[in-house]
Amino acid sequence: MTALETLIKSLTRLPGIGPKSASRLAYYLIKSDRSFNRALADSIATIADKIYPCSVCGSFTETDPCPICSDTSRDQSLLCVVEEPQDVLTIQASGAYGGLYHVLGGAISPLDGVGPEHLSFAKLLKRLDEGRFTELIIATNPTEEGDTTALYIRHLLRDRGEITITRLASGLPIGGDLEYADRITLARSLRGRVSF
Amino acid sequence: MTALETLIKSLTRLPGIGPKSASRLAYYLIKSDRSFNRALADSIATIADKIYPCSVCGSFTETDPCPICSDTSRDQSLLCVVEEPQDVLTIQASGAYGGLYHVLGGAISPLDGVGPEHLSFAKLLKRLDEGRFTELIIATNPTEEGDTTALYIRHLLRDRGEITITRLASGLPIGGDLEYADRITLARSLRGRVSF
Repeated sequence: MTALETLIKSLTRLPGIGPKSASRLAYYLIKSDRSFNRALADSIATIADKIYPCSVCGSFTETDPCPICSDTSRDQSLLCVVEEPQDVLTIQASGAYGGLYHVLGGAISPLDGVGPEHLSFAKLLKRLDEGRFTELIIATNPTEEGDTTALYIRHLLRDRGEITITRLASGLPIGGDLEYADRITLARSLRGRVSF
Repeated sequence: MTALETLIKSLTRLPGIGPKSASRLAYYLIKSDRSFNRALADSIATIADKIYPCSVCGSFTETDPCPICSDTSRDQSLLCVVEEPQDVLTIQASGAYGGLYHVLGGAISPLDGVGPEHLSFAKLLKRLDEGRFTELIIATNPTEEGDTTALYIRHLLRDRGEITITRLASGLPIGGDLEYADRITLARSLRGRVSF
């Protein structure tokens, strides 16, 4: 295998990169300046050593606890439960949330062999016991697995009347068009209609 | 800037990779095994040193002349002119061509400041003088720049009656649907209709 074929083959293993994108990237790298290539290569080679899960929330971090967990100016009464570390970044980017996070590490999916024992529910209960949380916001994905996980959390916390459990609203995406909304989203958005 | 932000920023510079794909790739790399990351990093760091343009055709190669130019079993009377090195790979992958190639290094585009003097036309004429070519196949892109370049080549070779000049056919893509063809493609495909 030539160096070009080796590079293309490695790039194809990355998510969302097919053979055509891979060869486009490879040709870009051949033409781009060596210092950029070396910097990118160095980032890739070392990233897995520099980033690890926060011991408190489970989000990826370079310092433990992570900057969000150690930020005392954030609202310590709100806990947002997400599936994956990248969901923390997505919600942070919205700028609409100022509380803390808890990363489950996935969603319950019996078909994929992921049961509650594989996710960080024990740690979640421990945090609720020790913390001063008044509201738990479930921000799992609006998918079957995310719904199952949300129901499981509600079941888990059924005896804790002191904590309010909420879930992200489902409905039409802003800027979307009724015509292009899928049936399930439209049905959910009808059922969840709000007074105006 | 954290290691994660540095990696995402570098990835975003790659063609076709936006901020969302970049963070998806970064999170994949954090979770993937270090040996894969190191192999990918090594490929990226060294690719620009291992691959250079073939001194004959201008395509990227790891040996000079490239495997295609040095393959005497290929038809030495056919020369296919393409814009970029990756076009050689694309045409080779079709399996429909067995001749030689000439890479121009781009297409004539006054708006981008690319004139004929920036492309390898002099080398093309020299190859035509020295070679035994009977047909020159113009395989520039079916774009305004590619069309301009094709016309320029025809003009350049106007006094060489001995060489047949052809161009890749334009028309409906196979497997496509009339309904989804754009107007220009459809018009070209009508003008270029073939007896059946």
